[in-house]
Amino acid sequence: MLEDAAPPLPDKEQNFSEWYNEIIHKAELVDLRYGVKGFIVYRPNIATIMRQTYRLFEDALDEHGHQICNFPVVIPLEFFQKEAEHIKGFSGEVFWVTRAGDTELDKALLLRPTSETAMYPLYAYWIRSYRDLPLKLYQSNTVYRYETKATKPLIRGREFYWIEAHDVHRTLEDAVKQVKEDMKITIDVLHDQLGIPFLLMERPEWDRFAGAEKSYAFDVLFPDRNVLQIATTHLLGENFSRAFEITFEDVDGTKKYGQQTCFGIGISRIAATIISMHGDNYGLILPFHVAPTQIVIVPIPKKGQNELITEKCEEIYHKLKDRGYRVKLDNSEDRPGAKFYHWELLGVPIRLEIGPKDIEKGMITVFRRDKRERIQVKEGKILEVIEQLREDILKELRTRREKDLEENIHEAKSREEFLEIAKNRGGFIKIDFCDNAKCAEVIKVETGGYEVRGKLYGKEEKPKGNCIICGGKAKSVVYVAKAY
Amino acid sequence: MLEDAAPPLPDKEQNFSEWYNEIIHKAELVDLRYGVKGFIVYRPNIATIMRQTYRLFEDALDEHGHQICNFPVVIPLEFFQKEAEHIKGFSGEVFWVTRAGDTELDKALLLRPTSETAMYPLYAYWIRSYRDLPLKLYQSNTVYRYETKATKPLIRGREFYWIEAHDVHRTLEDAVKQVKEDMKITIDVLHDQLGIPFLLMERPEWDRFAGAEKSYAFDVLFPDRNVLQIATTHLLGENFSRAFEITFEDVDGTKKYGQQTCFGIGISRIAATIISMHGDNYGLILPFHVAPTQIVIVPIPKKGQNELITEKCEEIYHKLKDRGYRVKLDNSEDRPGAKFYHWELLGVPIRLEIGPKDIEKGMITVFRRDKRERIQVKEGKILEVIEQLREDILKELRTRREKDLEENIHEAKSREEFLEIAKNRGGFIKIDFCDNAKCAEVIKVETGGYEVRGKLYGKEEKPKGNCIICGGKAKSVVYVAKAY
Repeated sequence: MLEDAAPPLPDKEQNFSEWYNEIIHKAELVDLRYGVKGFIVYRPNIATIMRQTYRLFEDALDEHGHQICNFPVVIPLEFFQKEAEHIKGFSGEVFWVTRAGDTELDKALLLRPTSETAMYPLYAYWIRSYRDLPLKLYQSNTVYRYETKATKPLIRGREFYWIEAHDVHRTLEDAVKQVKEDMKITIDVLHDQLGIPFLLMERPEWDRFAGAEKSYAFDVLFPDRNVLQIATTHLLGENFSRAFEITFEDVDGTKKYGQQTCFGIGISRIAATIISMHGDNYGLILPFHVAPTQIVIVPIPKKGQNELITEKCEEIYHKLKDRGYRVKLDNSEDRPGAKFYHWELLGVPIRLEIGPKDIEKGMITVFRRDKRERIQVKEGKILEVIEQLREDILKELRTRREKDLEENIHEAKSREEFLEIAKNRGGFIKIDFCDNAKCAEVIKVETGGYEVRGKLYGKEEKPKGNCIICGGKAKSVVYVAKAY
Repeated sequence: MLEDAAPPLPDKEQNFSEWYNEIIHKAELVDLRYGVKGFIVYRPNIATIMRQTYRLFEDALDEHGHQICNFPVVIPLEFFQKEAEHIKGFSGEVFWVTRAGDTELDKALLLRPTSETAMYPLYAYWIRSYRDLPLKLYQSNTVYRYETKATKPLIRGREFYWIEAHDVHRTLEDAVKQVKEDMKITIDVLHDQLGIPFLLMERPEWDRFAGAEKSYAFDVLFPDRNVLQIATTHLLGENFSRAFEITFEDVDGTKKYGQQTCFGIGISRIAATIISMHGDNYGLILPFHVAPTQIVIVPIPKKGQNELITEKCEEIYHKLKDRGYRVKLDNSEDRPGAKFYHWELLGVPIRLEIGPKDIEKGMITVFRRDKRERIQVKEGKILEVIEQLREDILKELRTRREKDLEENIHEAKSREEFLEIAKNRGGFIKIDFCDNAKCAEVIKVETGGYEVRGKLYGKEEKPKGNCIICGGKAKSVVYVAKAY
């Protein structure tokens, strides 16, 4: 562990909110001075992470037979009004485009809050026969919601960066399989490439997406023990296909409604998660896959030997660049200490320090950001070591967060115990529950905002007692948490 | 040359407009039934090409020290009003967001028609000292213009996919260098990766971007001899930095205005160019770098040997996939002929045909889409051949288009000759010109729409006679063309 500098940030564990507000400015991630409430500016240090995250998910979607498409940002009113539940869910929070130049538009257009109603009228044109199925399309775009809740940069805003996939299948069985594939894609990227653990929840009936039959969501735990939904996949069944007339002629010649799913991946929220989960009091710690700079080289100058040092740094720089790494050679005038501080703040996973002593010994000093540890590596072994480190760092980050998640899942056997945990500890609270919306409302009121997030997906958990809220028959084990 | 099927499309050279309107539907590129004038749906076959084009340019921009960022789609009125020329240029064609939910917004917001006025107020915050320069940021986004001209899919619409880069430099000299770097990036991608030739024009004074001191544009030639602007780079000088107060303390301690440039890359227009330039009467011909499917494998079935054939196809499929190619194995029930027709229409650059005879001989039949030619290749050489073909195909496409461009640059020595060429031949017409806007207007009127596109950049062309329009002193050689 380095002890050479005081951490530049407030303590993350003790005061997460302050830590978050400082890091987003100190690391130049966002700017909140845009002058329109709920709309923020994403600076390169976060926009690059988001771009890389988009690419990871796009490639994973492509790999599983999805295809990219682009629908307009505006939705005509007559499209939007076709599915009743959906309008109810969104109409209070849409932005309206009413004028162009000096002309009032004949028909007002809304900025998409999500694209079901934009896409499905076209799906009705495209799908004629079972041969046209499955149809698996996604968009990488922004959506607009006039949020009335307090906004928080990257977490809740009025402009939201995400991917939305919308699929139509021939049978309900295929649609259910699609939901599982969506989960697999999300798990692969979150777990394998970003080191982000989560609870995958089946949302309770009253918290489903407007128009969905089943909603599944990826909830992650933040350092303040609040949770955030970062991805969802929904089984829509025939709700939308009936409203939008998405029908096909099946193998047997009969006309059927398409079985639909939709899938949302919150790119700005995943960025917020990367910042919050992995960061420490020295700044960001970025997973290799999304780091704008994966490796930084810092020359350690010494009078009379600087030419030699520069040469060696450049040699290593080109070696790494040729291998496809996003590498930077920091040749600025600053002292090495200032450079260390800067690149640690920005979360560059690996730093190489090359000075006269290193060169003399044929070694390179390698600093790994996650553990803030230095090791000495033979120059000839540097590629091998980096290759290994990128795995090790990801594993270390993931292990930390998995431990944290595990430690913050509490079981409450009574209402009193539940309220005590909610008040003093936070995190996920596991309770036996009657599956009744009224009891969920009681929880919300008594805890000042805790929500029933749902049942754990993929693991049958049977209640052992009665509902801890009403004392009635418990139907399931649910996880309760305070959400952003 | 294959002679086995009649071309599915009208003749491109004879009737380009009809060809274009058919190919965008037959190849399932766009759908025009969205129900909002000027807004269209980009289907996967074109959206994937656009996504790949975005990635090519983003990677090239990153390589040259640009960084990605994201600004909101809405611009507050007070930002928009800061630069007088700019408002004049755009205010007639902006969309206004005036309402959210049931609430009239206090201040109306406009959908960005371009992002100068969104970005520069923040630039003024970020830039303090010469150490903050250069600032080189870009966005991959959509912009909105209430076009009153006739719209044409991918070419002119009210929603436009592009990249916009906005840079601030310390000195005018650096800004001028930036413009050259922007040109280099564009040339590298258009020429080296997409096989698209162009004329790089310095636009005349009256056709500059609103607020620019110099405007340079990449004009490409379409098969109907009309031209299309697909990328532009502008020297803004201090016009915007004065309006937006983008100042810095220079090395010598004095306060100076930033020297700005901006750079736009029309992604949907480049997609239109790829379609129109390279395609033929059999469909699209896609450059390898942007093809959604680069190689398709079509099994040629034979009774009793289909298991063996499938096995071989799968072996080759995995071999190519492991190499990173975007490859597809077409296992559908269709006859091989129908598959050939389909994948030719979609422009897949290389097709492999594997049948019993091929397997017996240890060969693979390779079809290259550009020349519609088959060659026999030893199975063991397939990777090598594909590697070579991807270069050859690109070269072939580029050579064809360069020849076409060259053949369609005509020199007119008199007004009569000029009018004759404009009427009967189209393309670029080179004339001696007085640099007077009035003469440009005469040209427009007399030819029904030809425009002075500007001087050729990077090549000093001296007029030999007088202005062919007014007979006054010619100041330069300009290129005139009919633009989309």
